[in-house]
Amino acid sequence: MSANAATAFQDRYPDDVAHCYGCGRLNPRGYQLKSYWDGEHTVATFVPQPHHTAIPGYVYGGLIASLIDCHGTGSAAAAAKRTAGMHGDVDTLPRFVTASLSVDFLKPTPLGPLLELRGSIVERTDRKVIVDVVVTADGIVTARGRVVAARVPEGMVAAD
Amino acid sequence: MSANAATAFQDRYPDDVAHCYGCGRLNPRGYQLKSYWDGEHTVATFVPQPHHTAIPGYVYGGLIASLIDCHGTGSAAAAAKRTAGMHGDVDTLPRFVTASLSVDFLKPTPLGPLLELRGSIVERTDRKVIVDVVVTADGIVTARGRVVAARVPEGMVAAD
Repeated sequence: MSANAATAFQDRYPDDVAHCYGCGRLNPRGYQLKSYWDGEHTVATFVPQPHHTAIPGYVYGGLIASLIDCHGTGSAAAAAKRTAGMHGDVDTLPRFVTASLSVDFLKPTPLGPLLELRGSIVERTDRKVIVDVVVTADGIVTARGRVVAARVPEGMVAAD
Repeated sequence: MSANAATAFQDRYPDDVAHCYGCGRLNPRGYQLKSYWDGEHTVATFVPQPHHTAIPGYVYGGLIASLIDCHGTGSAAAAAKRTAGMHGDVDTLPRFVTASLSVDFLKPTPLGPLLELRGSIVERTDRKVIVDVVVTADGIVTARGRVVAARVPEGMVAAD
């Protein structure tokens, strides 16, 4: 991993689309998820807080879905940039939004350990990228998700 | 809607499974979603906070997925109780967890208006209930989801 790879995908979004509750660097109340390349895969880690619980002792599924969502859209943005032949790790990324999200909760996810999300780009076109995401806790796969991400539609971002 | 129906599904969970970040009455930092019967459907409403944003002006998809998740498991619990022939609206509900969750984001969901989640029970067996959920904002359907909910596995809830 190059030194430049330490700039997270989400830290390369333009300021006007960097407020996402899941991953926006400009949202101080959000989760601020950070995703990176790891070879051909993408990776992010997150440590849930004690209040992010479902049944006591386990992580809230809505949080897991949220992390998959943001890791998926971030991975889509980074993949789109790679596809465009721009391999730099510090330049601005296009913003993708989620068209559909699906998550299979395979096992209860223990609350406490760091979670790892690992993404695989399974399909990409100009305007759509599909990302599969595997969630592990203490090395055990607890959830799998799929994000169909689409480029932000024209007009969705307010003009300054 | 009867007076008793004003007791939300989530307020009928036993204390030891009432801490969910999405809907637990005993989680003061959570969303505290409340779901109710409305005839054969189930309904919940929620007003996202300003920090629950995706692209500025729109609701974070992870929050929408979370609300669908908790409305789905709550609806599953209530449906299971009805199935069992216990139609009371105040007795304790069994706790369901999410086996799988899928969401189609049909349109950007505006941030500001109250969101309505309307659930339909599409399948139920002793241990599994499938719930479809439609999300509307200002009367416009912005997302559709499906929750496959399963009864909490034996041993998942810690003994006191």
